[in-house]
Amino acid sequence: MTLALGIDPGTATTGYGLVRLEPDGSLVAVTHGVILTPKDASTPERLALLYRRLRSLLRTYHPQDAAVEKLFFQRNVATALAVGQARGVVLLALQQAGVRVFEYTPNEVKQAVAGYGSADKQQVQEMVRALLHLPEIPRPDDAADALAIAITHLHTSRFELGTCYQVDETSSDEL
Amino acid sequence: MTLALGIDPGTATTGYGLVRLEPDGSLVAVTHGVILTPKDASTPERLALLYRRLRSLLRTYHPQDAAVEKLFFQRNVATALAVGQARGVVLLALQQAGVRVFEYTPNEVKQAVAGYGSADKQQVQEMVRALLHLPEIPRPDDAADALAIAITHLHTSRFELGTCYQVDETSSDEL
Repeated sequence: MTLALGIDPGTATTGYGLVRLEPDGSLVAVTHGVILTPKDASTPERLALLYRRLRSLLRTYHPQDAAVEKLFFQRNVATALAVGQARGVVLLALQQAGVRVFEYTPNEVKQAVAGYGSADKQQVQEMVRALLHLPEIPRPDDAADALAIAITHLHTSRFELGTCYQVDETSSDEL
Repeated sequence: MTLALGIDPGTATTGYGLVRLEPDGSLVAVTHGVILTPKDASTPERLALLYRRLRSLLRTYHPQDAAVEKLFFQRNVATALAVGQARGVVLLALQQAGVRVFEYTPNEVKQAVAGYGSADKQQVQEMVRALLHLPEIPRPDDAADALAIAITHLHTSRFELGTCYQVDETSSDEL
């Protein structure tokens, strides 16, 4: 039995979705939701709140694996920096909890969940609902996205040993 | 007496510089250096190492204030994401240690240290050396940059109450 946590990090909203792979190959949605931080708090305060909430989630559920989206698609440098800050805190909390971290591109997520890389957001969300036997599409979007990433990891690791998080960008060694 | 920690965050190399403002207005370099993380480690491992080293530094010196560069100048989205991840971990550690975090633009740093916003890197480093009465320009560059940010904060807070870290980018609330 494998328990995988999908995470969609952000300073204001971090989506999470915990999915269990049953011995018969079926998937069960254990929990999902969003970690929200108050707008009027400073960025360091918001990051500290995100860290505490995520640590608490990890202590409660003890997932073996976590999956995050590979973020090379950000258009905007300011957005990439802000998402990066939240993502750094998420990766830190996962590493400290001994959780293995895996990365998937948006196309890999669409391919794994909807069966084709050009699926749109709604098709992916509908497949997340169907695969997890949920009565409705999970809300909000960030939670549905996180469940999709968790499903991607479980689908991938069912057939092959997934590739654990590695830095691809050679540039990051020069920072 | 105020003790300010300047930090220049990165996944591979994080520069730090600790500067004390004496009652007579002079500045003393308490310590400076870089936190390096191994290239062959994963990003979560490197972030966890950065976090541990920074926490240890904060426990040893107990600075009241910390200053980081305001990062809107990153040209490259992949670089911004990687720097953001390290920066998120740094802001978290500072918040958890109860350190107030301040931000300064590169121009504010040049203005405060060298006296004019168009100063080049070498002029800034030479002024850091002179202001801190060091025999040589501090090395490596990331440590000198961190000392420059700490000096900027102490110069600024000597004349006015500095502005504590606030999120400027309205976009970051929508992430």
